[in-house]
Amino acid sequence: MSTARPLSNILFCLSLIFHCSLAVSPFGKIVPRFPSPLIHPESSQRPSISNDQSGSSGPYETRYFTQVLDHFGFRPESYQTFQQRYLINSTFWGGPHRNAPIFVYTGNEGNIEWFAQNTGFMFETAPRFNALLVFIEHRFYGKSIPFGGNKEVAYSNSSTLGYLSSTQALADYATLIIDLKKNWTAEDSPVMVFGGSYGGMLAAWFRLKYPHIAIGALSSSSPILNFDNITSPYSFNDIITRDFRSESENCYKVIKQSWQKIENMAKRQGGLEILRKSFRLCKNSMDAGYLQGWLQTALVYTAMTDYPTPSNFLNPLPAYPVKQMCKAIDDPGKRDDDFAKLYGAANIYYNYTGGVSCFDLMDNSDPHDLGGWQWQACTEMVLPTEGSRETSIFPAQKYDFNDRVTSCAYGFGVVPRPTWIPTEFGGHDIKRTLRRFGSNIIFFNGLRDPWSGGGVLKSISKSIVAIVAEKGAHHVDLRYSTGEDPEWLKDVRKKEINIISSWISQYYRDLAELSS
Amino acid sequence: MSTARPLSNILFCLSLIFHCSLAVSPFGKIVPRFPSPLIHPESSQRPSISNDQSGSSGPYETRYFTQVLDHFGFRPESYQTFQQRYLINSTFWGGPHRNAPIFVYTGNEGNIEWFAQNTGFMFETAPRFNALLVFIEHRFYGKSIPFGGNKEVAYSNSSTLGYLSSTQALADYATLIIDLKKNWTAEDSPVMVFGGSYGGMLAAWFRLKYPHIAIGALSSSSPILNFDNITSPYSFNDIITRDFRSESENCYKVIKQSWQKIENMAKRQGGLEILRKSFRLCKNSMDAGYLQGWLQTALVYTAMTDYPTPSNFLNPLPAYPVKQMCKAIDDPGKRDDDFAKLYGAANIYYNYTGGVSCFDLMDNSDPHDLGGWQWQACTEMVLPTEGSRETSIFPAQKYDFNDRVTSCAYGFGVVPRPTWIPTEFGGHDIKRTLRRFGSNIIFFNGLRDPWSGGGVLKSISKSIVAIVAEKGAHHVDLRYSTGEDPEWLKDVRKKEINIISSWISQYYRDLAELSS
Repeated sequence: MSTARPLSNILFCLSLIFHCSLAVSPFGKIVPRFPSPLIHPESSQRPSISNDQSGSSGPYETRYFTQVLDHFGFRPESYQTFQQRYLINSTFWGGPHRNAPIFVYTGNEGNIEWFAQNTGFMFETAPRFNALLVFIEHRFYGKSIPFGGNKEVAYSNSSTLGYLSSTQALADYATLIIDLKKNWTAEDSPVMVFGGSYGGMLAAWFRLKYPHIAIGALSSSSPILNFDNITSPYSFNDIITRDFRSESENCYKVIKQSWQKIENMAKRQGGLEILRKSFRLCKNSMDAGYLQGWLQTALVYTAMTDYPTPSNFLNPLPAYPVKQMCKAIDDPGKRDDDFAKLYGAANIYYNYTGGVSCFDLMDNSDPHDLGGWQWQACTEMVLPTEGSRETSIFPAQKYDFNDRVTSCAYGFGVVPRPTWIPTEFGGHDIKRTLRRFGSNIIFFNGLRDPWSGGGVLKSISKSIVAIVAEKGAHHVDLRYSTGEDPEWLKDVRKKEINIISSWISQYYRDLAELSS
Repeated sequence: MSTARPLSNILFCLSLIFHCSLAVSPFGKIVPRFPSPLIHPESSQRPSISNDQSGSSGPYETRYFTQVLDHFGFRPESYQTFQQRYLINSTFWGGPHRNAPIFVYTGNEGNIEWFAQNTGFMFETAPRFNALLVFIEHRFYGKSIPFGGNKEVAYSNSSTLGYLSSTQALADYATLIIDLKKNWTAEDSPVMVFGGSYGGMLAAWFRLKYPHIAIGALSSSSPILNFDNITSPYSFNDIITRDFRSESENCYKVIKQSWQKIENMAKRQGGLEILRKSFRLCKNSMDAGYLQGWLQTALVYTAMTDYPTPSNFLNPLPAYPVKQMCKAIDDPGKRDDDFAKLYGAANIYYNYTGGVSCFDLMDNSDPHDLGGWQWQACTEMVLPTEGSRETSIFPAQKYDFNDRVTSCAYGFGVVPRPTWIPTEFGGHDIKRTLRRFGSNIIFFNGLRDPWSGGGVLKSISKSIVAIVAEKGAHHVDLRYSTGEDPEWLKDVRKKEINIISSWISQYYRDLAELSS
């Protein structure tokens, strides 16, 4: 984030989709804060998909496309262009003479390499479909920076950041895919779009808005209903609460009581020093709020990525990490030392492989270039998730849109438009709207994932299908398969492949019928 | 157009959808020019729908909605607002307790009163459906002018005109309709959108892009396939040729030969004076090109509006005006005087009721505020229609996109984006795309209408339906019915009403099923 002044300087905190570390804001409320992992870090479990190790026949080539800055307007500034990065892998492609499919990942809010390297599902299914693989980077992230690629300029103020929006990103994808198909003489190849998280929202919306470009979408863990008042603002924290409580009632209670205990301790003379030692914190300034935020980060991300196999995020995690955290908390050896218990839990998230000498609460590093999400959360991506009930594992709190307004005024001088996304993409009464409109979307959700509360959990029509995994976490289906995958996960992927296969077959039948 | 400097000053000419008067451009080619009638003029056949005559229970009330300038971006300028005009008639509405329908006209490139006053079909069908009627004005037209309602500012340059685009207009409609439903406690009322011409394109696109807001669309005479290379650039003039040739071979020949004859005469000494007298032209400067353009305007608009009953456009016309024009040309009394024959034909278009003392070739008045279309034709609305074959009724000419580029650079300093509309809205392979996606659109086309060549002429699916009238002209279905309407026209309207009725019934069934 060294180049992003307004973001690196902001003290205020926002509800960030998929980044939910919590901290006390300058306004005294605990609200989610930046930064956070989104899917998986660069250090994937599969070294084979690292570009360096694979050479030219490797996982992908990096290319750039000259993209227009503003698709929807025609001011002189609209005509500015930027270089949009995309990754392409043609190893498995059946070629244009067979109209072989094109699988496109609709990049989310970060470095596209990170997503490509961590969407093993596409690499693993490409051979079966003879698919060309394309991963398109979202504007303003990674290396796809407008204004001459100069991030300092692009992120300098709302006049430049104003071009960072979901609708512009979708139009980027449309423009790039059409050009790519032309260049690869693949005009008749069916395009399937894939995405997880915000990328999954984009995949679903892309199918809805650009059916002439994509024949179907796999939209994984996309909380497209987490806008406006469609989903309860308590849903997110309710699910995290349920996750931990499902492991043990004691685990839930210890965590729930910890927030007050931390505050009480911080107020005592020498209390901060006790907390610092208990949680092995580095010697920079701290207060109760920062510590609470640091702990909540660990809890939120662990719930989101409660996978059934070991995984490697910003930090490596064991299989079933929520269970492991609760084990640490329920450890009878620690008796009544709640801070020791919580430290044990946090240590699983922050230091599973050991080796950390002290924890830095002020760490705001952003290795995956996620910083632009702050802006998106302040404009259109207003996903109310901050509500906590009396029974929540977090301190009780009402969702208040005005907090967002204040924060965004402070951080960017911008006013959020909370109703814009449902205006543009729908969401209210989605069943009624889409049961007789649209087709070919899979919505996957894992119910352990706090974002699943805002997902589409019931099938809408024959071909707008919900796949729900009770034990699944955030877009677990898109991860590389492993030898230890449970049956339910194998079943999910099998279902997805079968459905995609049927769409592609149908496309070929239509193509044959309409050309004859 | 007195307030619109760049438009009133432009000498260059453009291919303007629905305004196809032709003239010699500064570059020496005959290309379509502005202005022109779109649907019907204020002076409708039905005085009952004039606001003044009807009072408060009258045809509509005028209201304004505070609309955001840029929906898709978040620069400080994006947040500017303007007052968008809409007309509303609740006389027939069944009210929110019955979830009675809302019929919305998606305004095109002109004063919305003009469209409301000339879309009798909506007024005539509203009582049957107990529908609320709403006519929304398109941004930058009529009284819906951004930048404080100051047309001089709004039209001053590409920095302000840059906000005039179809996507922004559609987002305006979405935003306004959602707000309106809320204010009228009509959240569960089904919305049907209607439009003719460019308004018909907007209606179809609105249903495709905003299915969560409109349950269906009647898209009348909308050449949504007249972009890129989907439709032949010869199609438009081919149809005009066919229209006149269908009346008589002599009529076609006389018109076809006239262009050269006019040029020959203009080159002779005193020839311009002879032409001036022959066509009763006023005493301002003229040349052969202007006269040709003036004649072509008459031919193009008469073909477009070749209605089976008397109509009243910018100028009043008899029933079957193409036939009447050919009658004038075939008049045996005029022997070999081709100019007299052509004058007779032009007189039908320009002076059917008599009373014009002389014709002003330089008349660029714009009573319906259509001027913004020049800008739209220079940015996204690139509809190739200028091609004329050797056999065309007009002089042979190839379509050359570079002519547009040159004109638009000259007029606005802007570069057209000819592939944008099919990128954003589709069009290529529409059958393949929409046979399994989307629903509830009626595409009406009359085959006498030169724009029908770019229309959807075959049904795509069960509920994306084409209605084609061999004898129909430009959105004849949307006009007020008359006692003289032929059977085929009555049938068209009956079909449309039945289809709309079935959609609304289905909506109510779905509503009941999903609420129970």
